[in-house]
Amino acid sequence: MKIVKKIGALRKALESPRCQGRCIGFVPTMGALHCGHLSLVHRAKKENDIVVVSIFVNPTQFGPHEDFVHYPRNLKKDTKILKGSCDYLFVPDVREMYAQGFRTRVEVGGLGELLCGRTRKGHFTGVATVVAKLFSIVLPQTAYFGQKDAQQAVIIKKMVTDLNIPVKTIVCPTVREKDGLAMSSRNAYLSEGERRDAVVLFQALKSAQRLVDSGVRESARIISVLNDFITRTVSARVEYIAIVDEASLSTLEKIERRALLLLAVTVGKTRLIDNMILKIKVSGNR
Amino acid sequence: MKIVKKIGALRKALESPRCQGRCIGFVPTMGALHCGHLSLVHRAKKENDIVVVSIFVNPTQFGPHEDFVHYPRNLKKDTKILKGSCDYLFVPDVREMYAQGFRTRVEVGGLGELLCGRTRKGHFTGVATVVAKLFSIVLPQTAYFGQKDAQQAVIIKKMVTDLNIPVKTIVCPTVREKDGLAMSSRNAYLSEGERRDAVVLFQALKSAQRLVDSGVRESARIISVLNDFITRTVSARVEYIAIVDEASLSTLEKIERRALLLLAVTVGKTRLIDNMILKIKVSGNR
Repeated sequence: MKIVKKIGALRKALESPRCQGRCIGFVPTMGALHCGHLSLVHRAKKENDIVVVSIFVNPTQFGPHEDFVHYPRNLKKDTKILKGSCDYLFVPDVREMYAQGFRTRVEVGGLGELLCGRTRKGHFTGVATVVAKLFSIVLPQTAYFGQKDAQQAVIIKKMVTDLNIPVKTIVCPTVREKDGLAMSSRNAYLSEGERRDAVVLFQALKSAQRLVDSGVRESARIISVLNDFITRTVSARVEYIAIVDEASLSTLEKIERRALLLLAVTVGKTRLIDNMILKIKVSGNR
Repeated sequence: MKIVKKIGALRKALESPRCQGRCIGFVPTMGALHCGHLSLVHRAKKENDIVVVSIFVNPTQFGPHEDFVHYPRNLKKDTKILKGSCDYLFVPDVREMYAQGFRTRVEVGGLGELLCGRTRKGHFTGVATVVAKLFSIVLPQTAYFGQKDAQQAVIIKKMVTDLNIPVKTIVCPTVREKDGLAMSSRNAYLSEGERRDAVVLFQALKSAQRLVDSGVRESARIISVLNDFITRTVSARVEYIAIVDEASLSTLEKIERRALLLLAVTVGKTRLIDNMILKIKVSGNR
């Protein structure tokens, strides 16, 4: 695995394999790598000749009162974790990514203002813009994202379609801890007690599916039950619970087909998100 | 020259020459081709192995009260003009370029709201977005734009830099009629009398350089003289006259180095633009 810091150096390194027709897979990350990231890297390795992982804590996707400064950074540890799993680790410098006078934004209108976008103003513009940049630098055939960041995945897929970007984007399943907590770099912020409480997100998701299984179809009813359930955990504060169409993110009043249930819950001071596809099971007798 | 209408078909056609390392040059146009466009195509032909010209009257760069519906379209004539000069003529369908649910915008913050952007709200967002799309479809090494649309050229160059788009953009000199009128598809809107009056833009540009040559350095003074000069032509109405830095488009109070002078003038009902670099001549004796 080669660590590359300069945009030009990465382009140069990838030029010859690209010309030889070798497939390039790309996993963009913000570092603080965990098994969720690794599942993307392994999938990329399986499906490509060359795998590029980027680590870039992108300042433009953090709000002024968010955790940019404190976001976990440990390149040494990340490098160790990746060793053998990828070919290039791209760690660009923020001053090269955003040179003086930088002023271009990619906006996926409408989708970025919903759900997490309501509290995280500008977050998804920052995400879309940096991913567009990274795609243009790496020029991969395929890029891999986690379902844990469901809204991000929808927005990036939409951007890629709308801008005709020649990259196939694959969304991989959320990787969970033993108790069901979705893996996230931000889990590191949790105290021991909060860590135990944080399982409430996954428990809520599972209970929603049980409600659907028992015949409940009204989103409002499910959301209300989940809200009560999560609120019973004292350290947890619900930011939103939403049931939406998985492609358009538009609200579904009723669950009549696959539906995406999303949660944002603050546990202690740590904002956590999780999601699950709710499915209507067809009875085996039919 | 092959006419291609589908995005997938163009991609397929360009795949093999690209893999063989052949250089692709690209000239995006809205059709109604004139010698200005042809100068770009010829330059592209000289510098590349394969030349792609696109004709797409992009609806998103027209305001609701602008001339989208009446913009001149004549594919037959354009095809004749291009014959022998390019390899692929790409004429995408608006329904494929903007499929239902299209919602992504590329904004070059700040630059798109100045000058022409003041009256043409959203125009440069439309331009930047469609050019980003076309670049992603054609994947050229080099793309060619005309200096006549100076603000557009600055914005596209900035977008390319900011988003790390691997396309070299070349801006070619404005091509003029014998009397100096900058070639433009919109010149076709002018009546015979207006066509004669329209030369006032070029005359104004030239007189500005003469003022600089005679030692005038204050932009306000030059703008005032030009305004008086243009206004003497009854059919002409000044929209703006500006003297700016040629890279940042920021206003220059004084002309101390190369400066970009831009005009937007409506002649009859036709909005025309033109521009010129003002230079300070260094005396031969020094």
